[in-house]
Amino acid sequence: MTNIAAAISEVKALLGQRLNTSKSVCDLHGQNETYFPKMVPNAVAFPHNSLEVSDIVKICAKYHCPITPWGVGTSLEGHALPLHGGITLNMSEMNRILEVNSQDMFAVVQPGVTREALNKELRTTGLFFSVDPGANATLGGMAATRASGTTAVLYGTMRENVLQMEVVLADGRIIKTGTRAKKSSAGYDINKLFVGSEGTLGIITELTVALKGQPEAISAAVCDFPTIDDAVDVVISAIQMGIPMARIELIDEISIRAINQYSKLDYPEKPHLFMEFHGSKNSVSHQTESILNIAKDFKVGDFKWSTKTEELSKLWSARHQAYYATKALFPNQIGMSTDICVPISKLAKAIKDTQNDLKKFNVTGSIIGHVGDGNYHTLLFSDPKNPEDLKLNKYLANRMAERALDVGGTVTGEHGIGIGKLDLMEQEHGEALSVMKDLKKLFDPKNIMNPGKMIRLDTNKIDN
Amino acid sequence: MTNIAAAISEVKALLGQRLNTSKSVCDLHGQNETYFPKMVPNAVAFPHNSLEVSDIVKICAKYHCPITPWGVGTSLEGHALPLHGGITLNMSEMNRILEVNSQDMFAVVQPGVTREALNKELRTTGLFFSVDPGANATLGGMAATRASGTTAVLYGTMRENVLQMEVVLADGRIIKTGTRAKKSSAGYDINKLFVGSEGTLGIITELTVALKGQPEAISAAVCDFPTIDDAVDVVISAIQMGIPMARIELIDEISIRAINQYSKLDYPEKPHLFMEFHGSKNSVSHQTESILNIAKDFKVGDFKWSTKTEELSKLWSARHQAYYATKALFPNQIGMSTDICVPISKLAKAIKDTQNDLKKFNVTGSIIGHVGDGNYHTLLFSDPKNPEDLKLNKYLANRMAERALDVGGTVTGEHGIGIGKLDLMEQEHGEALSVMKDLKKLFDPKNIMNPGKMIRLDTNKIDN
Repeated sequence: MTNIAAAISEVKALLGQRLNTSKSVCDLHGQNETYFPKMVPNAVAFPHNSLEVSDIVKICAKYHCPITPWGVGTSLEGHALPLHGGITLNMSEMNRILEVNSQDMFAVVQPGVTREALNKELRTTGLFFSVDPGANATLGGMAATRASGTTAVLYGTMRENVLQMEVVLADGRIIKTGTRAKKSSAGYDINKLFVGSEGTLGIITELTVALKGQPEAISAAVCDFPTIDDAVDVVISAIQMGIPMARIELIDEISIRAINQYSKLDYPEKPHLFMEFHGSKNSVSHQTESILNIAKDFKVGDFKWSTKTEELSKLWSARHQAYYATKALFPNQIGMSTDICVPISKLAKAIKDTQNDLKKFNVTGSIIGHVGDGNYHTLLFSDPKNPEDLKLNKYLANRMAERALDVGGTVTGEHGIGIGKLDLMEQEHGEALSVMKDLKKLFDPKNIMNPGKMIRLDTNKIDN
Repeated sequence: MTNIAAAISEVKALLGQRLNTSKSVCDLHGQNETYFPKMVPNAVAFPHNSLEVSDIVKICAKYHCPITPWGVGTSLEGHALPLHGGITLNMSEMNRILEVNSQDMFAVVQPGVTREALNKELRTTGLFFSVDPGANATLGGMAATRASGTTAVLYGTMRENVLQMEVVLADGRIIKTGTRAKKSSAGYDINKLFVGSEGTLGIITELTVALKGQPEAISAAVCDFPTIDDAVDVVISAIQMGIPMARIELIDEISIRAINQYSKLDYPEKPHLFMEFHGSKNSVSHQTESILNIAKDFKVGDFKWSTKTEELSKLWSARHQAYYATKALFPNQIGMSTDICVPISKLAKAIKDTQNDLKKFNVTGSIIGHVGDGNYHTLLFSDPKNPEDLKLNKYLANRMAERALDVGGTVTGEHGIGIGKLDLMEQEHGEALSVMKDLKKLFDPKNIMNPGKMIRLDTNKIDN
């Protein structure tokens, strides 16, 4: 029943030059940031508005043609790869900021707006958009994967910060989800259902996101520790004491080495915490002092802090480059990034177990994380010439995820399921996975919306 | 196909004395807090665990018997009324606190635990459960209606504070939703789908709720203003300046008169703000000062503040009794409570319009609200001897809700839809309502789960 060629021909008639079937463009949309093999779409569409998206979806529905939304392709779990071919929807030309409302502190944007573009637009307003996954991802992609990052510990993830969306459903209908009110008890929370649905239930064509007020004062602190354990103990104490940190990042010695080389810095090659505090001048200095006191209990080495904008940018830019920096440290290796999230009291053991695994299996890997949320990443390296190495790394990532589940955590705090973690869905959700499958079938009966991601259907032809 | 008698007989065999068909018990479960006529169930079941709930649901599914969950019956929109008879599930005997985890700051409870019972249990832990709708509701009921209340402005509503649930589906399957991790990107957010679903998709049999650390210092402030407008302007300024208030409540002159009489107090009979600040000693006094400065810009009268626990309890106890106090002021009238929520910049006009309506239509009504969220209530009185009066009040409540929608708000910030606001669902959600209807049919194909609430199905026999 699937007829991709017919779908492409009709979409071509609709979009003209904005439906591209050239090898180079299709190839670009078959790449990914991490270890997945290349998967190339049959065509790439560049829609300009939700009506066009709706029309494209209707055509694809008619011909059972898979549709894969694409932001800027920074997903780490293969979300944007067209597993079954079909048409990739590149949302980059839907990149207008439609409204900035300072009084009610929200912005209305098209899905192709990146977080940096939005924050640039907000520079003079005293407001900012807080969710910061490091990569300059699009807001549509961030909503679709329920992204979070360094500031989620204080300001929340996309789950908390997407107020309202416009979504194109699998039959082309356009709906609005959510409300601009701060809270609502009116109906099922389908807004939260679409946040994190990875393009498998519908396509996000507009978002209203919450903005935050620029804090009166910001200070950052950098400190090193003899072991990761000491650093993690500081984090646990700080969280349990309720110190309202805006950022608290763990960076292990490998990542520090990478950052030093990549960003020409000279941090001691030891596990570090990078922290940031937001508030009034008084509260910020009070918080910095509290952290210093805790850190002293856990063998802190150097403790530097700063309130200078320039130094802060340098610090967080270095942190954000850690992923590319660490990959650059092992240039001929496959870098596979994985993440889990556990209740805070379980964090030290979770990280310890991962360190032990790396030693035991003799795998090179770095550990870095948004540890205030109990969330951390490992970047595992393997030799592309030896496919068994990558298999071992996947095995280690699975062990890490399974241990997270054992302590009440989740197999992914922020990267999402995509293709990479499909096998873990049943372990995490049990019988609830059957409910999720039913939801997928309800919203997307023809399985054309990013098929094969997040939910593995065994009743449908188009599937992995 | 519906055979309620057969269902009752089988549930009787299961529960024995804990399935009650006596007139007195059924009558008690046919009452409500507000203006809805009495609707009596055919039987009331008192389950003890989720397996029993599952068995009851299976029996009811077999006989198409409606099931209405009941916490303590404090709903203001008729949620717990058995619109189509059947079996009411009184959850009060599932009232055990199963776990308090101080390190990870959560509690696991059965749905019949009330918020006061949980907070009593937490007294010695340094933690508290923050969601506070005033009434001593059950946590199951609060999750089902996405309750919030006075502290939501700082700590969030049930949407933010329910981490995980156990839910019995309409076919008796038992699932777990959510995670204990602070964030997750693993799968569809069905946890948030069940929060606020009003018992129409499944029955909550266990909840894991977030706990907060007791703040180092608490201070409260009470101040009066010549007009509601002045009070609301203070709120809007404070919110827009980002002052992190833990509570900010508007109480109009009628409610103050009621509180004074009911709680033997002597506040000046003027519009008031009751506020509370949580934090360190320094930050709390800094916040109180900031508010005082704003209040001075808006003709504040008396400005009193206190940090004494006893005075704080007295204050909030008076606030919590406002609903009953105001009803006591008009003892022979029907009191109909309604609520809306709007973006904060629209709050002053929304309240003004309501005041104008009350004047124009010569209706007695009080205005009170969790104004930091843009959420307020009106309590409208009518003469039971004159049914036209109640109709007029419903008309005014509808106008209030429609005006909320006009400015991007919601028809209910926290009371929910229940029976009372069914007609407003389409206006709020448009095409998205059809998605909600599809969800209802997916989860509850026989329409036995609290039928006729939130979603009006027109294809099904059991419906209002």
